[in-house]
This record gives sequence, C-alpha cells and structure tokens, in this order.
Amino acid sequence: MDETPETRTTRRRLLTAAGAALATPAFAGNPKNLPPNVPDWTRQLGDGVAVRPYGQPSKHEAHVIRRDVQWLTASRESSVSFTPLHELDGIITPSGLCFERHHGGIAEIDPEDYRLIIHGLVEKPLIFTLADLKRFPRVNRIHFLECAANSGMEWRGAQLNGCQYTHGMVHCVEYTGVPLSVLLKEAGVKPNARWLLAEGADSAAMTRSIPLAKALDDCLVAYRMNGEMLRPEQGYPARLVVPGWEGNVWVKWLRRLKLGDEPWFAREETSKYTDLMESGKARQFTFVMDAKSVITSPSPQAPLHQKGFTVISGLAWSGRGKIRRVDVSLDGGRNWREATLDGLVLDKAVSRFYAETEWTGQEMLLQSRAIDETGYVQPTKDELRKIRGVSSIYHNNGIQTWLVKPDGEVENVEVS
Amino acid sequence: MDETPETRTTRRRLLTAAGAALATPAFAGNPKNLPPNVPDWTRQLGDGVAVRPYGQPSKHEAHVIRRDVQWLTASRESSVSFTPLHELDGIITPSGLCFERHHGGIAEIDPEDYRLIIHGLVEKPLIFTLADLKRFPRVNRIHFLECAANSGMEWRGAQLNGCQYTHGMVHCVEYTGVPLSVLLKEAGVKPNARWLLAEGADSAAMTRSIPLAKALDDCLVAYRMNGEMLRPEQGYPARLVVPGWEGNVWVKWLRRLKLGDEPWFAREETSKYTDLMESGKARQFTFVMDAKSVITSPSPQAPLHQKGFTVISGLAWSGRGKIRRVDVSLDGGRNWREATLDGLVLDKAVSRFYAETEWTGQEMLLQSRAIDETGYVQPTKDELRKIRGVSSIYHNNGIQTWLVKPDGEVENVEVS
Repeated sequence: MDETPETRTTRRRLLTAAGAALATPAFAGNPKNLPPNVPDWTRQLGDGVAVRPYGQPSKHEAHVIRRDVQWLTASRESSVSFTPLHELDGIITPSGLCFERHHGGIAEIDPEDYRLIIHGLVEKPLIFTLADLKRFPRVNRIHFLECAANSGMEWRGAQLNGCQYTHGMVHCVEYTGVPLSVLLKEAGVKPNARWLLAEGADSAAMTRSIPLAKALDDCLVAYRMNGEMLRPEQGYPARLVVPGWEGNVWVKWLRRLKLGDEPWFAREETSKYTDLMESGKARQFTFVMDAKSVITSPSPQAPLHQKGFTVISGLAWSGRGKIRRVDVSLDGGRNWREATLDGLVLDKAVSRFYAETEWTGQEMLLQSRAIDETGYVQPTKDELRKIRGVSSIYHNNGIQTWLVKPDGEVENVEVS
Repeated sequence: MDETPETRTTRRRLLTAAGAALATPAFAGNPKNLPPNVPDWTRQLGDGVAVRPYGQPSKHEAHVIRRDVQWLTASRESSVSFTPLHELDGIITPSGLCFERHHGGIAEIDPEDYRLIIHGLVEKPLIFTLADLKRFPRVNRIHFLECAANSGMEWRGAQLNGCQYTHGMVHCVEYTGVPLSVLLKEAGVKPNARWLLAEGADSAAMTRSIPLAKALDDCLVAYRMNGEMLRPEQGYPARLVVPGWEGNVWVKWLRRLKLGDEPWFAREETSKYTDLMESGKARQFTFVMDAKSVITSPSPQAPLHQKGFTVISGLAWSGRGKIRRVDVSLDGGRNWREATLDGLVLDKAVSRFYAETEWTGQEMLLQSRAIDETGYVQPTKDELRKIRGVSSIYHNNGIQTWLVKPDGEVENVEVS
C-alpha cells in the first residue's frame, strides 16, 4: 500500500470515525447477531426466487417514500408528492420514488385504446397507436425533470423543513422514446408552423404551447423510463420529454400534438406557470430551468449523528446543459470550496456532488452553488428577489441554506 | 424541414408503416375511446398523488416480471429468476426486474444488526456498521452484473425459447458504494496479502476468493442501486461490486472480508463456477465475463406483428471495458452490418444497439456480435466449443441465433 502523508492523514481521520463508531449506540442491536456470532439470518433458509416476480424495497426502507403536504393544495387530484432526495444517492431516481404532479389525477389509460394524434399545420394528419410508436426508431436519454414550482414556497423565506419538500419536485431517469422530430417529419410540418400544442388525456386535459424549434431539437415522445414502461403517474403509456424545460410542458398521457403559427395561451401558460413580477406584469413562456443545486445530506430530514469525518452530498442540474462545477460553503456563503462531481455528468441531467469536512460539532451554514457549462452561476435568493420580486412561485433556483446545529439537527434557514 | 433524398425515403417508408397500421387489429379497442371521441379516462377524475407512496408499474404491465424455470434447480432457495430483457429498452434495469440468483434464499437482515468484518492479513481488524459504511466517501458507477451461468443451457444447442431465459441473468444498474480500496486501506493490508475472501451472510454463506489486485482496483462495497438502498434479493444492505467479473463473486449480504496469501478454494470456486474442459480438467478462477450480446427484440417472447420498417434491438457488454461496435446479421452470420450504439456507452456496462431493416415476411436468422475496446470479438458457439468442449455450463458468450418465421414468430435455433 502506497502511503503518502495525505493518505496517512485520511486514514487516520477515517479510523477515528470508525473507532468512534465502536462506542456509539449505532453498535446496539441484538447481541446474538453481532460478531463473532453467526447471525440469525445465516441460520435460516431465506425466501426463494420469484417470491416477488416484481421486486420491492426492503421492509426496513418503508420510510423511503414520496410524501405530500395536504395543506398545500385543495385536492390530491391536483397536487404534488415529493421525491425523498435526502434518502437517495447517485443520479438515477428509482421510478417508484419520482415525484408526482397532477392536475386532474392519474389518467387510467388502456394501452390498446391509446392514440396519439398529430394535426393542425401538417401535410398529413396522423394517428398513432402505442404499437406504432414502439415501431419507430428510438433513443435513450437520461434527463432531469423539474417542476417550475419546485422550491416555490421558499420565495418568501425558509418555509419547509427538508429538501424533500423544498427541492423534491425533481427527478432524473433514463427515457426511451421516439424523437419528436421524427414523428413531425412523418406528418410533414407546414412552412408557416411555429408552435406545437401538446395536450394530455387526463381529466384536466393539461395543455401547453411549445416553440417548434424546441420540438424539433431534442424532445421525445417517451414511453419508457429506466428501461420499463412509464409508470401511470408519469404519463403511461406516453409522455413528452422536453429536456431542460419546466416539467409542466412534459405533457403526460400525451394525446394530441397540434401544429400552429402562434401559441395557444392555454390556462396553464397564462393564469398558471407565469412569473408575476413586482410591476404586476408577468414573465411568460419561461421554459428553461436555470442552474440549481441543493445539499441533500446533511439536511433537515437527514441530520448528522456523529462528529468527525463527514461527507456533504447533493445534486446539481441545469436546463442549459452540463454542470461544470459545484461550490460548497460551510459558513453561509462567505467562503466557498469546490465540490467533487462524481460519476456521470450529463447534458440536462442531475449531477451528484460530494464535499468532505471534519465536523467537530460547530454550527454550519451549508450552501451549494451550481455553475453550468454556459458559465451561469446559481444566484442567491436575494439576487433573484431583486430582479423578480417576491410574488413569484415559479423558477426559484436560489441558493438554499441549511443550519447544522451542535446536536446535529439541521434546519432550513435563510441568510442575507 | 430539410429534406434530403434519404430523409424523404425514410419518411415514405415510415408512413407506409403507420398507414398499414391503420388497417390492422392494433386499431381495435373500445370505439368510444378512439379519436375524435374524448376517451373515458379524460371524462373522469383519476387517482390523486401519494395514493401509492412507493409507485408501481401499470396493471397493464403485469406480464413484465422475473420468471423462473422450476425444473432447472432442486429448490427455489437455490435457484434463478430471469430478467425480462425482451420487455426492456435502454441500459438501466429497473431494480424490481433485476434477475435473482440465490444459494440459500434471501437473507433477511436487520440493518441495525448488520456488520461487515475485515480481518486476516491486516494491520487492524475492523468491524463496520451500515452507518459506518454510509459515512465513507462513496462513488456512483453503472455496471452490468452477469451470472457466469448465463446462457449455460445453450452450450449443447438451442434449449430455451426466449432471451429472458437464455440471457436473462444479466442486469445493469447504478451502484453507490465505498471503494473497497478505501476500506482495505483503513484496515491496513499486510505486504504478504494477495487474495481476499468475501463471505455472504445468507444461509449458504456464499464464499469466494478474489485477487487483491482486483479488490484494490475498481471494486465497491455497494449499499445502493439506482439511487435507493439495495433490494433484499440483491444483497441488502451491502454487497460486493466486482465490475466486469462473473456475478458469483459479487457477494451479496456481505458479511466478511478476509485477507490472505492464497485463494481459499471454497465450494463455489471448485465444485462450482469452474469450467469443465474436454480433458476432464477444469478452468478455474475464470472471473472476467467476455464480450457478449443478444438481440432482445425481435426474439421468441417478442415476435414481429407487422411487416415493413422494423427496428432490431439488443444489448452488448464486456467485462474488459467498453463496447466498441456491434454487428447484426439477418442471415445467420453470412453478412453483417454495423448496428448503432445508442445513448451511453460505458465501461463494463451494457450498451444498447439498434439496427433497422425492412421486413417483408422473409425468414431471417438474426444474430448479433459484440466487439469490445480491446478488439475482442464475440465468438460463435462452435468456436467456443472447439476450445472448451461441451461439458461447460459457465462463460458461454457465443453468438445467439433467432429464427424469424414468415408469420413473425421467433424461435431459438442454432446454425453452423
């Protein structure tokens, strides 16, 4: 084993951590299962194969679930459940934990009866069955999906105590789908077409206008996520994938695509999903999700249980491309250090970052700041408010602050 | 829309496909749900959020499950269930569909009582709790895991009718774990150590010897897959990840790591997981999984339902690095064309390939052939047999052949 002074320091530091652990309650449990004893589970034959033909998480992970906040919305059919970001690592979100946002509940679609219509300013209107869609050339892309309202409650200061609630309207999976450009080429887009209307088959008939240039660029009509068919709550059997853009335009249960020469000004792009400015005017069609990041651990739902060597971990993403760098501050933004980007750093996907520190029980004001490949730097909440005021709900990509207290508990706070 | 003669041809060809579809039974279904009617599911409010706090696939996908073959093994506690590769796309396997291979059933481990011991030729034996492991620096890597016995039944010719059964002992997920080198550094590996014993906490106490060089190279002690904690059947709460090597050494429910100066010659590396040659001698410690591929669609469980434009799709992987190229043959290996590698092409991960053809109802003998970045070319089964005979079970990476019949049905056949 090569040992430089650095590795020796690291080893000593980590050993202290493991040594300390030896004396903590983490070593409690049933003594007969502890070394050198042979534990109970080795003494008995376990369940065989295919007891669960479709596998489930361990019963010990029953707390790792999507959660909703019932006071937030009038009904659960038009509401949100949040991804438990604090319980996850890496960049892939398991499909069962991807946040939900519905406007009229989950459409219950029979795949045999499913149809996708393309009409309007096209040479030849077309209707596709699901089987038709599956016959087309397809591509696989890992992308984040963030609701425009993610962190929306935080505009007016620290409101929700946990990154599941403040930032849990984001997920990242591998999609399989037909490039929208291929389907539009089939129909033949007329020269005067400029916009695309996408309509969902849910009871809200969720409808959004999308510029044709984006539709022809990198959008997909996706029918799979993480290899298998889309989950019902994610638009089974087909949804729009609009990489880097606000989740609301990723229309689920996709039923209709209409080509036109101007936007339709549907409810969800006028009354909703516009950013009300201080002047009383609203920013509209603010599609792109700007660079953003959040520390997922430690965080209010993932407090520190032990002093010593500590890994700070989080997610960063940008609707404009790849994440170039993430900085982490332990003192509320006065000093910054560069975090490590681990694993895959992909275009319009979440990236996982880590920063190591020695926690001696001091108070910390943890922040992270994402910088994307365009050079865009994630702003502070105050910087955002200076430009956009405090009436907005959507597109809050401000820097989040967690206060780590001497007892290891973590609180959502705001610093200025 | 830019139209070259090529894109025009493509469009015409695809339109024919969609046009043809209009007249097929695929357009059957409940007429009141078909366009221009507003379908039933748009007329009623769907389920709200968090009805399933941990989401599940659509009820219409209930056939997408792991399957076992009960005559294959004496008991389900020491058996296999297979990944439904023909029902998947992309490169990520959903955790619930990752194949199972157990030797004494699924160990049912209480994470509070879980311990990992490192001992033997180390300076300081260590015991880690799960909480300890989670405090270490960690990395995220997407890797395939293939059982050494995958395709083993095919050594003696075409046996099983479907890629789920012939090739379904492979999956590919994102792992989060501590580099094994970091844990071994903590314990301090003694200079004379050369091998590592990994023991599982299942009732079979699954035990394998691994060369120290590999352990220090790219192995992980992983506790997460696809972001969430490992599934019980995949070794909850911690398993070994041994990239590119046969699945049997990826010890699940990892309990013990012992450093030694020679291998232990455990049951699973002597009586089993050795390759019996014609001479009666056996190849041993044949860890690396050589380059391999399989067409997942069309395949016996995924027949063709329609003539015209057809996408042939499959998976390729190599234990020696990245896939460089995949070739596809429609005539049993006489002529080859290069397939498209789509999406991510990662080190020791599955890669997704596609090849397009026009199927007019002719018989096809479909084959795929993987070439990895070392230049290794996937052999035919006959080439393998010439070297290794027909007594082997393990390490069959021979080229697989599917016969597509005029009615679209697909059969597992062998050509020589």
